[in-house]
Amino acid sequence: MKPELSVVKIGGNIIENESALGDFLNDFAAMKGNKILVHGGGRTATRIAGQLGIPAQMTGGRRITTRETLDVIVMVYGGLTNKNIVARLQGLDCNAIGLSGADGNTITSGKRPVKDVDYGFAGDIREVNGKAVKALLESGMTPVFCAITHDGKGQLLNTNADTIASEVAIGMSEHFETSLYYCFEKKGVLRNVEDDNSVIPHIDTESYKQLLETRVIADGMLPKMHNCFNALQRHVGKVHIGLPGMIAGKEDLFTTLTL
Amino acid sequence: MKPELSVVKIGGNIIENESALGDFLNDFAAMKGNKILVHGGGRTATRIAGQLGIPAQMTGGRRITTRETLDVIVMVYGGLTNKNIVARLQGLDCNAIGLSGADGNTITSGKRPVKDVDYGFAGDIREVNGKAVKALLESGMTPVFCAITHDGKGQLLNTNADTIASEVAIGMSEHFETSLYYCFEKKGVLRNVEDDNSVIPHIDTESYKQLLETRVIADGMLPKMHNCFNALQRHVGKVHIGLPGMIAGKEDLFTTLTL
Repeated sequence: MKPELSVVKIGGNIIENESALGDFLNDFAAMKGNKILVHGGGRTATRIAGQLGIPAQMTGGRRITTRETLDVIVMVYGGLTNKNIVARLQGLDCNAIGLSGADGNTITSGKRPVKDVDYGFAGDIREVNGKAVKALLESGMTPVFCAITHDGKGQLLNTNADTIASEVAIGMSEHFETSLYYCFEKKGVLRNVEDDNSVIPHIDTESYKQLLETRVIADGMLPKMHNCFNALQRHVGKVHIGLPGMIAGKEDLFTTLTL
Repeated sequence: MKPELSVVKIGGNIIENESALGDFLNDFAAMKGNKILVHGGGRTATRIAGQLGIPAQMTGGRRITTRETLDVIVMVYGGLTNKNIVARLQGLDCNAIGLSGADGNTITSGKRPVKDVDYGFAGDIREVNGKAVKALLESGMTPVFCAITHDGKGQLLNTNADTIASEVAIGMSEHFETSLYYCFEKKGVLRNVEDDNSVIPHIDTESYKQLLETRVIADGMLPKMHNCFNALQRHVGKVHIGLPGMIAGKEDLFTTLTL
């Protein structure tokens, strides 16, 4: 039997709400067994970029990572957010270690190829170094990843935190029985977006197909669900989507995804 | 026989000179054996603090680390500088891992007590966790420390990089035969500050005393030399002070300190 591992992803809406972050860090520190945290960014980077006079460049609703924007992302996600989360987890007796993908060569990516659009310094993940991450876990450390990877040739790259979470879970599945938790601001995947309590408790490959066909899953949920089923198809045991409290058993309602 | 370990410290003047930094990283990546890098800050933090409208608070020529200043230091030293150095070392086949003292609980410190002056969020080192750093080295990783520690209760603290270097070297001496390299903008400790070639090649406890009495060592060199002899008295084998190229055997002149 492989040992168990939980990979937990939190987004900017938790990071930038002091009370929500405090609750979450308490819950995460208290989780038993091997665990990894992946955190997204939030609006601080946008605010600081604005203060530094760096304009946000968008194309088709998607942000372009210019060199100046990347610097701010590295400062805010890799520095301010990551180091403060690590220090607070240490204060809760969780031996956290903050990582970008460059640290210990844990996550390599390739700069997104320019087709119609040049997304700038955005990285698509190539490989998670499961052996390096396992060595940290075996030293009793809890990796805390920010949404930054590297190309192995000296360049840092901005990378989607949801994708980092699923790729890390996939990469660790050779060594661990892995579960993936996506914590966000809803109680789970909703049958009716207008009704916060219309959580679908369980989705499998079959019902996923139906939910796509009937367009119950659409818009922002599409890439998230794609990440989830990609993880399941590549040996991640279970994926859970819901409010952060679900990692501490505080939520009755959340969505569990299996193959 | 204990294995050998080199602890190398570079300051802001190297970090902020692209050509000097490139040369240094090449030399550091090529160093054989166990090694640790400690980097200082430089003027980027001051510049960004200015752009963000955060005033520098000084007292008696010393900087006070306000909460806002600490945030900038964590962004710049812990994020921008540290992650870019790590990514560039990875590109040179050096498996670097960036650390603040909070990461892996590697360096704990205490907030400097308020006597005549409140230095704010400045930390005096209490303990280097040699076991944790050794585990990283044994996993084939090269720790890269920025000048930030933590109090173990959730608070990051700004800490002098020279002191981090000497305390890390001391903390590792239980497990390693440790040498400490202070790279700076001079060829070594100078007998005559006006003459860049008046390097004193070797200083021991006896000649150190004389150099202090005759005031050859004064001003800015005093705390650096104090750190050096503190390290030597606490089981660090040798300390070298000079231009960065000394780590690659490129310098004929530099200062070696022994007990």
